[in-house]
Amino acid sequence: MEPAILLPAASYELVTIQKVTGNAQPLTVSDQLAAEEPLEIRLGYEEDGQRQHRTLAVTMRTPGHDEELTAGFLLTEGIIRSKADLLGIIPCPDVQKPEETGNVTRAELAAHVSLNFQALERHFYTSSSCGVCGKTSIEAIQTTTCPVLPTSLQVAPEVVHQLPDKLRAAQAGFAQTGGQHAAALFTPAGELLLLREDVGRHNALDKLIGAALLADWLPLHQHVLLVSGRASFELVQKAAAAGIGMLAAVGAPSSLAVQAAQEFGMTVLGFVRQERFNIYCGAERVTLE
Amino acid sequence: MEPAILLPAASYELVTIQKVTGNAQPLTVSDQLAAEEPLEIRLGYEEDGQRQHRTLAVTMRTPGHDEELTAGFLLTEGIIRSKADLLGIIPCPDVQKPEETGNVTRAELAAHVSLNFQALERHFYTSSSCGVCGKTSIEAIQTTTCPVLPTSLQVAPEVVHQLPDKLRAAQAGFAQTGGQHAAALFTPAGELLLLREDVGRHNALDKLIGAALLADWLPLHQHVLLVSGRASFELVQKAAAAGIGMLAAVGAPSSLAVQAAQEFGMTVLGFVRQERFNIYCGAERVTLE
Repeated sequence: MEPAILLPAASYELVTIQKVTGNAQPLTVSDQLAAEEPLEIRLGYEEDGQRQHRTLAVTMRTPGHDEELTAGFLLTEGIIRSKADLLGIIPCPDVQKPEETGNVTRAELAAHVSLNFQALERHFYTSSSCGVCGKTSIEAIQTTTCPVLPTSLQVAPEVVHQLPDKLRAAQAGFAQTGGQHAAALFTPAGELLLLREDVGRHNALDKLIGAALLADWLPLHQHVLLVSGRASFELVQKAAAAGIGMLAAVGAPSSLAVQAAQEFGMTVLGFVRQERFNIYCGAERVTLE
Repeated sequence: MEPAILLPAASYELVTIQKVTGNAQPLTVSDQLAAEEPLEIRLGYEEDGQRQHRTLAVTMRTPGHDEELTAGFLLTEGIIRSKADLLGIIPCPDVQKPEETGNVTRAELAAHVSLNFQALERHFYTSSSCGVCGKTSIEAIQTTTCPVLPTSLQVAPEVVHQLPDKLRAAQAGFAQTGGQHAAALFTPAGELLLLREDVGRHNALDKLIGAALLADWLPLHQHVLLVSGRASFELVQKAAAAGIGMLAAVGAPSSLAVQAAQEFGMTVLGFVRQERFNIYCGAERVTLE
């Protein structure tokens, strides 16, 4: 075999952010976000001598190498066993909504590949809300909670600067295993109310929100959520469902996370560490001088 | 509201590992892994005056706070809108396999909650293989690929020490956004063959494996996979489907990742950084003096 070095296609989105350092005036700068968009994987297969088509899965991914992603998904999820099981993979031309263009692939399976859809449905587990219908999901949450989150929450930069240390000090699971994500809820003054940890970042947040729901604290309009990792679309969507006004992340947000937060009117802070953070949207909740 | 500070229940698993530092003799020590197990969420609901039950979702989580996780999931995924929609959440007593005990919750919804299962199925997107049937999945992959991975792959510690720097140097997406996971394939001598990046760690790996599949490189018995983050059950399962003999992670592996790797006969290295790494299983592929 003669392997070629294949480097990834760049897939970023340029945004304007405010960079806050200590108590200095924030700087307005350009920043690149990792692009996050849904990919719907459709299958073409032979059944009773007829070619049929159906959706297999939707995954939130960074656009680029979509045929490879489709081929890899089919193999690693046990749909195909070798390249011979594939007739081809194409960007699906048969899309119904403009936002689906470029976000749907179609894999045509060889006639000898047998599929058991019942087993497949059992086999795949559900992880979160549908990406392809991301817009629909956003609208659904806006309907069930509130059209736009209120902006009465006000948080000082000094408070934000202290959050990561408070999180780390309380993160028992991470200290012991180095392998757990955390989600923590704070008051506007920076008091830690609740912390949950999990190997899955979405689970840590679901545990936190579930605890708040069972304690009758919802909606969490006056609270700050800090997550230990990156902020994805999924986390923004879940935070919005609980009415959280400010999502702060130790890591970077994705492009779709920021877009969704803008629709909800949520504040997103990223790279919150070492007396610095970036404001991606909703700056009105940060009390800048 | 009178918030209590609720700290997480510890949920770790104790394992014996080999700690490798530079070229020194490895140390055998005890280590704690973040526990990872499947949680199946079942729903009880009213239909035509009758109470029905069905599985809603399966998620890979760290055990503990499972009722909160269930409540939070139902809220953030739009199944319920408030606590009043819930009659209660219990650890489901009605399980059929021993390994499901403690890994199934049942949420009983109030009679007024209306469900649209078709919309739900459309709403949830599939992320990876089923956790509850983790054992079944492992067996399925063992059947489709190979019972146990061959051990002919031999990698020197000096080669492992160099991998993170090579990965970071090639990680264009992370350098620009700080928000992408990477998966990279190396030869036993440490030559970088292929790198893929994505906001989702499982997508980065699927892209990598898909590229290898389309290039006719499978099975990848003689290759080393390095992932930029943590190693979950899902990543081990996907790597096994491609026949990868050694999975190295910059972060920590989960308990189920190591268990699954042992079943596949795969080598798992964790915390690969700064001239150090831990061997969790499959030490026979590391050429220790």
